[in-house]
Amino acid sequence: MSLIATTPKPPYYAVIFTSLRTEDDEGYGEMANRMLELAVQQEGFLGVESAREDVGITVSYWSDLESIKRWKQHGEHREAQRLGRQTWYSSFKTRIAKVERDYGI
Amino acid sequence: MSLIATTPKPPYYAVIFTSLRTEDDEGYGEMANRMLELAVQQEGFLGVESAREDVGITVSYWSDLESIKRWKQHGEHREAQRLGRQTWYSSFKTRIAKVERDYGI
Repeated sequence: MSLIATTPKPPYYAVIFTSLRTEDDEGYGEMANRMLELAVQQEGFLGVESAREDVGITVSYWSDLESIKRWKQHGEHREAQRLGRQTWYSSFKTRIAKVERDYGI
Repeated sequence: MSLIATTPKPPYYAVIFTSLRTEDDEGYGEMANRMLELAVQQEGFLGVESAREDVGITVSYWSDLESIKRWKQHGEHREAQRLGRQTWYSSFKTRIAKVERDYGI
């Protein structure tokens, strides 16, 4: 997977997930890998970019809102979200945004 | 500045800047700090989140497209963009997106 997502011509959607971690690492890495593995298989998935320093930022890209909703409701992902709220994240914010324009080199 | 941006109720805008760095660090840190210092002073600026590992992701939040356009055209910022393309980034992508919904803990 490329580090900068290769996305189609806009419009498409971005889910910006910004988080602060707790010190509880148990199961976190495995779950993060599993969620990535699953996400890329979902209908409408376009790509993902991720980095963590003091704060973690993961931006996933999707073709439409319906795909984002389906992924949010996916069984294993729901369990990951539950554990995230309960154990791994002290704070997080999820933002759903419509990409209207992009450019780069 | 808080690590997770405190943003108002949507809609508002996100500029997702994803980049890969070259090995040329000269002037980069100072310029990054100066751009942050300037950005927070701009009309319409709402907040920023940033992390870099293999890839760097900086998401800045803005009240409207006009503010984003003004910031892009700001004199010192234009010079930073020029140096970024020429020296500091081997690759980057900028995405302008309208945040339609958000939630978190």
